Amino acid sequence: MALNGKAVIGQSGGPTSVINQSLVGAILEARRHGAITGFYGARHGVKGVLGEDFVDLFAESEQNLSLVARSPSAALGSVRKKPTTEECHEIFRILRAHDVRYFFYIGGNDSAETASILHEVASVDGYDLRVFHIPKTIDNDLLVTDHCPGYGSAARFVALAFMGDTLDNRSLPGVKVNVVMGRHAGYLTAASAFGRRHVDDGPHLIYVPEIDFDMDKFLGDVENCLRRDPSCVIAVSEGISDKDGVPIKTSGGRDAHGNVQLSGTGALGDYLSQKIREKLKVGRVRADTFGYLQRCYPTIVSEVDSQEAREVGARAVRAAVTEEATSGSIAIRRGGDSETYTSELFITPLGTVAKETRDLDRRFIADTENDVTSEFIEYARPLIGELPPVGRLAGKPIARKLEA
Amino acid sequence: MALNGKAVIGQSGGPTSVINQSLVGAILEARRHGAITGFYGARHGVKGVLGEDFVDLFAESEQNLSLVARSPSAALGSVRKKPTTEECHEIFRILRAHDVRYFFYIGGNDSAETASILHEVASVDGYDLRVFHIPKTIDNDLLVTDHCPGYGSAARFVALAFMGDTLDNRSLPGVKVNVVMGRHAGYLTAASAFGRRHVDDGPHLIYVPEIDFDMDKFLGDVENCLRRDPSCVIAVSEGISDKDGVPIKTSGGRDAHGNVQLSGTGALGDYLSQKIREKLKVGRVRADTFGYLQRCYPTIVSEVDSQEAREVGARAVRAAVTEEATSGSIAIRRGGDSETYTSELFITPLGTVAKETRDLDRRFIADTENDVTSEFIEYARPLIGELPPVGRLAGKPIARKLEA
Repeated sequence: MALNGKAVIGQSGGPTSVINQSLVGAILEARRHGAITGFYGARHGVKGVLGEDFVDLFAESEQNLSLVARSPSAALGSVRKKPTTEECHEIFRILRAHDVRYFFYIGGNDSAETASILHEVASVDGYDLRVFHIPKTIDNDLLVTDHCPGYGSAARFVALAFMGDTLDNRSLPGVKVNVVMGRHAGYLTAASAFGRRHVDDGPHLIYVPEIDFDMDKFLGDVENCLRRDPSCVIAVSEGISDKDGVPIKTSGGRDAHGNVQLSGTGALGDYLSQKIREKLKVGRVRADTFGYLQRCYPTIVSEVDSQEAREVGARAVRAAVTEEATSGSIAIRRGGDSETYTSELFITPLGTVAKETRDLDRRFIADTENDVTSEFIEYARPLIGELPPVGRLAGKPIARKLEA
Repeated sequence: MALNGKAVIGQSGGPTSVINQSLVGAILEARRHGAITGFYGARHGVKGVLGEDFVDLFAESEQNLSLVARSPSAALGSVRKKPTTEECHEIFRILRAHDVRYFFYIGGNDSAETASILHEVASVDGYDLRVFHIPKTIDNDLLVTDHCPGYGSAARFVALAFMGDTLDNRSLPGVKVNVVMGRHAGYLTAASAFGRRHVDDGPHLIYVPEIDFDMDKFLGDVENCLRRDPSCVIAVSEGISDKDGVPIKTSGGRDAHGNVQLSGTGALGDYLSQKIREKLKVGRVRADTFGYLQRCYPTIVSEVDSQEAREVGARAVRAAVTEEATSGSIAIRRGGDSETYTSELFITPLGTVAKETRDLDRRFIADTENDVTSEFIEYARPLIGELPPVGRLAGKPIARKLEA
């Protein structure tokens, strides 16, 4: 017999374009199971739990949920907070007071860790609490799973941005540096490679944080690129660091976790522009930092990503109610190749995805260390979805009439 | 009888998402008129004409043109070059050598000026040359016309970006500064107002270059905003300047025209962030500079804009061949209101759109000088097109069980 009680769900970390699909997937699935006697949304994740700030998700209309599912960002509000063990005890006290028997947390590796600690606290106390982590991250850096919900849509934004920007830079040639999100993992920056539709399209150079960034090599790469082509479009991860692990350039700020602030500033792009301008005497050098648009731009959504995000939410609830497991994180296993892609979900223990993250796989990074491999393209293609074609004029030359 | 001879077309200035619609509109229309015996595309505008660098546009397949029309950026390549009067004479010599009788130039006010000078040079020389300017600019700053092709699509990008970003900032609250293109005209920045779908959505503050920027007032506005709401999303034009006309912050670089470089750097956003952080002691302050994505992001296109861009290209060719006029610029007149919008094209003399530009109309700027008016919304709505709905949870609160 299923465990009867209420459920709480929260969203944590940087929002994504499809994180609300996971939320709505969970709500709709929960409605199908009488064991879940109420479904509470915690506002701003664990902060909302600690403040007893809950909303009634069963009171939401189906129509509104369908709209919320298709809206970017975290509908419940998000938080960057890893609760201390004492706070986990407090969270547990609150959940118990509301007779909560199911706890779902949508987020990245930090959220999995929170879920993991909470599960332990409940176990020690002999309280039957089902705890599930529902994965999301545009960084695609969770362990175990083939890929993370949220990545495909952000990668699609980046791919389209580069598709347009390489055309833009071809029309007014010069060097263009585009800074892409990803503190430690280069998956999102790697997706820039999908901007290429013609053989000489950019990005011409791609720098991921997994490779120590060397300014001299970088400037040499740009110089080589400009020898072949007046347009040089460059993808750079916001997290690039030198061989000692020191970020190349930041604004100097720090985020709520005490991490150096990388997003929400144009400092790195401007710094690289300046170096290129100084050292290579290039006339037109521009930098854009894609920033938060990457994770929450309405309508730029990968269908596969959207659907998988929905399913991981539903699966977590189903697994918890049907006692497939008493805790865990939902992971994705891939089948087929890039043309025949399929995916199935499975449950992995919380401990296997908590805390640690993974880097962009070395087999996805070209030996030149300034590009990705075709293996990466095959990996990411089904996650990003089909991209629209772009055209170029055939451009048959007209013979001259006058002396040059 | 129509004038027989070849036609040359070029693209100039910053590209847009629909400038190729104008190009393709012109090519397809030209094919319908036997008087145009050849249609040459000049690579990179007047630079291509001066270098006799032409491609045969009649040799392009219909299928490829249909793809090119839907692709952002300038398919012929663009240029930021205002030819000198001597260069106009040289251009004229080259056009004459190729028996060119039709000259079309797609661009902004500088391009209209180039067309105007060229027309004069030909007149003085007694050479029958039809010269037409085909309007495009995301800045929407051309005189005479109700609006400019290219604006609607860029405005749509900005609107969607703010729609997503206000949700993003609501999930992780703080101050968010978004810098939007527009050196002198605030039309594009004003379009940020379309990000609002709910009464408390951002942008909460909008700063256009038409209003002298005062740092103290700005910081006071932000402070007031934060008193009401933990989230404060701000739209700032890249061109904001103080009462003496000095830009608030730039990278120090200059573009090909010798103008201070505003785009392609995060300097202004970072500077405003820093000011807010210092003066208001706000924890989370972020800035994004939308940059070149605004003008060339594939798939983010306003249908009305796309169609009108196609039509201005076709109309220029038709007007020239049918001798509706021997020179001119195509302008748009609006009919109906924002619900019943219609538009028709008319021809205005080159001199009326050359050189000078217009600002964001004062009636579109709110008296508070940090917002737009509902009149602006009515003006821009049909140009941007219908925006997708976004959802929010109804969020019915759950009663507390424990003491606060």
